[in-house]
Amino acid sequence: MGLTVQKYGGTSVRDAERVMNVAERIVEAYKSGNNVVVAVSAQGDTTDDLIEKAKEINPKASKREMDMLLSTGEQISIALLAMAIEKLGYPVISLTGWQAGMKTDSNYGASRIHRIETERINNELDKRRIVIVAGFQGINKYDDITTLGRGGSDTSAVALAAALHADVCEIYTDVDGVYTTDPRIVPNAKKLNEISYDEMLELASLGANVLHNRSVEMAKKYNVKLAVKSSLNRVEGTYVKEVNQVEKMLVRGVTRDNDTARIALCDVDDTPGKAFSIFSMLAKSNISVDLIIQSIGKENKKDISFTVSESNLEAALKVLEENNSIINARETKWSKDVSKVSIVGAGMVNNSGVAATMFEALYNEHINIHMIATSEIKISVLVDRKDAERAVSAIHDKFNLA
Amino acid sequence: MGLTVQKYGGTSVRDAERVMNVAERIVEAYKSGNNVVVAVSAQGDTTDDLIEKAKEINPKASKREMDMLLSTGEQISIALLAMAIEKLGYPVISLTGWQAGMKTDSNYGASRIHRIETERINNELDKRRIVIVAGFQGINKYDDITTLGRGGSDTSAVALAAALHADVCEIYTDVDGVYTTDPRIVPNAKKLNEISYDEMLELASLGANVLHNRSVEMAKKYNVKLAVKSSLNRVEGTYVKEVNQVEKMLVRGVTRDNDTARIALCDVDDTPGKAFSIFSMLAKSNISVDLIIQSIGKENKKDISFTVSESNLEAALKVLEENNSIINARETKWSKDVSKVSIVGAGMVNNSGVAATMFEALYNEHINIHMIATSEIKISVLVDRKDAERAVSAIHDKFNLA
Repeated sequence: MGLTVQKYGGTSVRDAERVMNVAERIVEAYKSGNNVVVAVSAQGDTTDDLIEKAKEINPKASKREMDMLLSTGEQISIALLAMAIEKLGYPVISLTGWQAGMKTDSNYGASRIHRIETERINNELDKRRIVIVAGFQGINKYDDITTLGRGGSDTSAVALAAALHADVCEIYTDVDGVYTTDPRIVPNAKKLNEISYDEMLELASLGANVLHNRSVEMAKKYNVKLAVKSSLNRVEGTYVKEVNQVEKMLVRGVTRDNDTARIALCDVDDTPGKAFSIFSMLAKSNISVDLIIQSIGKENKKDISFTVSESNLEAALKVLEENNSIINARETKWSKDVSKVSIVGAGMVNNSGVAATMFEALYNEHINIHMIATSEIKISVLVDRKDAERAVSAIHDKFNLA
Repeated sequence: MGLTVQKYGGTSVRDAERVMNVAERIVEAYKSGNNVVVAVSAQGDTTDDLIEKAKEINPKASKREMDMLLSTGEQISIALLAMAIEKLGYPVISLTGWQAGMKTDSNYGASRIHRIETERINNELDKRRIVIVAGFQGINKYDDITTLGRGGSDTSAVALAAALHADVCEIYTDVDGVYTTDPRIVPNAKKLNEISYDEMLELASLGANVLHNRSVEMAKKYNVKLAVKSSLNRVEGTYVKEVNQVEKMLVRGVTRDNDTARIALCDVDDTPGKAFSIFSMLAKSNISVDLIIQSIGKENKKDISFTVSESNLEAALKVLEENNSIINARETKWSKDVSKVSIVGAGMVNNSGVAATMFEALYNEHINIHMIATSEIKISVLVDRKDAERAVSAIHDKFNLA
């Protein structure tokens, strides 16, 4: 007997009608003869409402108590979803994170799953019950409730699929699958039937908000076959898996990321270890740095430019200002009006013409490139935000992705 | 070091302001040098809202999933209350029913507490933390969440006080304490400083909705000293405890219960076992019968009258109708326009004039008595509902309770 793990997000269960719809999808999978384990998020705005309640009382509440509060959101979802399946007449049981054996570390608000003790779930599956598990949550060694932070429910689902050796982990969301680029920008964007873990990782980190990177990394590590599908229609989605054959398509997709800001440190002393000291300061403050460029300026001086997420800009500038006696930059410039546009594809590494084609597309549109960064399977450029959508369209056309 | 257990109901924590107010009360007790354990109910209408959500999806949801759903209400309360105490700068931790070691049977929706494994709570108290426990809930031997049903949070508090050998269990509510009668009916009703467990049990079962009987029974069994206080003011409340001295006051209080309906079975065969068969039929349908009167009617016939709660009237009539081939009553009469008025007092048993005084008070007001029932510490009469408030006032005055 096969085992399918499914995950439904908050919009998929936001009201009674959607919950019934999801229940029917689950029962379909069950009726096809498979065992089914489902991870669910909190309904619609529940989590935001709970955060609001907490803020009203104590904006600086401990993370331990925030997790105690927020974990109720998923507990409500699993109970309601189980009731919906009961209504359809199928055997079902809901389990909270701790009941499902989700053991995590104690980093409240952003816990990592250590392991899943699968005894309870397996007992329920042996009784041919559909098992509904609260996503986003677990329990630490003190028997306290933890939450997994951003992308938590996706991660719960993939961890369940890995621990239970599921045949597939289906992530249901409000889009049909993974596209060659954002269909809202480029109407003739094409849905991909399959994509490799590495490509999906690059797409996710580059702003295609379909799957959180954490879950894709875990899927890659444990070789869990992912399927991204819509909970609203029956369109065949996109499979994310290890793809070994040589790819026909060089470029998989084009992404745009507006959550980026550029910082430039001008005329920094050109001494060894300078870059290291700057970026370790930022790392200590938990600020991730993305594209980095270093260029030679005037004599014994250099310019260092890099990007951070927009939400980290203020904190980054503060760290740099506080440490300017060490950094000793003549001037610090910054800009939020930039976007990162990237192409991703496992085939690029063996094809030298890809970068040139991308730049040509931008040149034809008179779009100026501020920074360039490349990896084995992606090329990213920083452009003015006002040009970003045109850049995506032009590149998408140039590579004939439609 | 002393230990105080406190319980706050849903109205006491219904919004952020009330939660902060309760947090201050708790911190006061803590600052006086005592350890403090608090049981809390779900905020205001939370439980009703959750029931509504469930009904929308499946009105016949299993009780197991209902308990999974409803237990989130108290979990939200404990987290918010802990956050409020954090804001005041005191050490605190919230615990769900299962974290607090509340072991129950598996009667979902109306579980009984088997025992409390106090290790976790005691560890937290050793760290001088205020411990906030979710009332109304526990965990059964399958590691599934259960709820305790009506009066559940009071019961949680008393069980905690018993298991932890607390000095006192303070039940905070929206009234100042236990009164000689309902102050809304008789403005000069007097608050009692203390009352015995048995008297409180009779008062509770007779409609004085301050404490649920279950919690009073448990308090009596484990000799837990209860205090009923208002969460809204600083008035000294009422202590419920074993009162050994001979009471000065014969009659403790006067209560009225409108949740009652009378059924009369006329001209039933006067054969042995008739009453038994009728009341066992009702018991099988979980219908509690209160006052019972049997009178001789015509030759070899008798009339049997009894009261049930108003919500059970319809079900009771249905049971009686379905079984009338066995009961063989000539006619079944019923009335909802009745109220039960009772006097309670441990001193009554030794004083034969009490009943006569009560009936005199009613006679003076021209109030007709339909049924009478007595126990060691109470006398109840059934009167027309329109006369009930006048009856309470008259009896209260006659016994000089003001």
